[in-house]
Amino acid sequence: MNEIEQLIQLLAKLPGLGPRSARRAVLYLMKRRESVLTPLAQALTDAATAVRACSRCGNLDTADPCAICTDPRRDGTRLCVVEEVADLWAIERSGAFPGRYHVLGGNLSALDGVGPEELRIEPMIARIARERVTEVILALSATVEGQTTAHYLADRLAATGVAVTRLAQGVPMGGELDYLDEGTLSAALAARRPFSP
Amino acid sequence: MNEIEQLIQLLAKLPGLGPRSARRAVLYLMKRRESVLTPLAQALTDAATAVRACSRCGNLDTADPCAICTDPRRDGTRLCVVEEVADLWAIERSGAFPGRYHVLGGNLSALDGVGPEELRIEPMIARIARERVTEVILALSATVEGQTTAHYLADRLAATGVAVTRLAQGVPMGGELDYLDEGTLSAALAARRPFSP
Repeated sequence: MNEIEQLIQLLAKLPGLGPRSARRAVLYLMKRRESVLTPLAQALTDAATAVRACSRCGNLDTADPCAICTDPRRDGTRLCVVEEVADLWAIERSGAFPGRYHVLGGNLSALDGVGPEELRIEPMIARIARERVTEVILALSATVEGQTTAHYLADRLAATGVAVTRLAQGVPMGGELDYLDEGTLSAALAARRPFSP
Repeated sequence: MNEIEQLIQLLAKLPGLGPRSARRAVLYLMKRRESVLTPLAQALTDAATAVRACSRCGNLDTADPCAICTDPRRDGTRLCVVEEVADLWAIERSGAFPGRYHVLGGNLSALDGVGPEELRIEPMIARIARERVTEVILALSATVEGQTTAHYLADRLAATGVAVTRLAQGVPMGGELDYLDEGTLSAALAARRPFSP
């Protein structure tokens, strides 16, 4: 197998790319050696050596603890618990959360054999005590696994006296009622709020 | 901008990937350092240094002339002319062509300012004489630009005495007549052949 085929096979493993788009990507890279191919090779090499999981929150960064954990402007009393680093990034893009994060590394799942010891739950409990957290926001998926994990965490946290909250459920921005599922509509209706224009 | 954001920006440039899928790809890579990230970084570095365009046909390979140009089992009297390396690869995957190739590097296009001197046409004419080619197969797109280029090449080759052919047009494999455009149906009907079960 030559260099080109090997490159295609590796690129085809990326989510969102298959063999066909990997071939197109390789031809694209070959036409843009200086502007994309060489910088991308370098960026991957850099990332492989420099980027690691933050030992405190689980975020990916070149520093450990990560930039969010060490930022003094962050409100350390509020801890947002997420499943994956992707969720942390999504909330950061919204710019709506000034506190810190804790990445669980997944959800509890009896089917997949993921128990509490597979997730970063004990480190979370230890952090909450050590860092004097007063509110834990469970920002977990609105799926069976996500809600199972949320209930488990709420139980574990009940004795600590910390406030446990979760994301609101309702109509997403731009959402058309006609296209929403019944569960979302029921939740949005049950959580209706006074109209303030 | 840190290493992760730079990597996302570079990956997002690849065809088939946007900012969103580039982020997913980076998280995927971070979880698979040993199995994918490091090999991919290495494969890109190798490709950047080792892979080049074949000076004879324009194919991408680590050797120059490329493996196809130097393969003695290939029939050097038949030359398949394609627009891009992607087309060459597509025909190679079919396994249906035992000859050699010539990559033009695009199509003639008055709109985009691509004239004959921008394409590898003169090297093609020189090759045909030098390599004693007897048949030139114009495997160009069935688009206005592709057919304009085909006509231009056929004119240029008329005086050389070499046989000039083009790919058949018709119903694609698995194609349902109901979904085919009128142009394809007209071409398929005009080029109908005796039925031999």
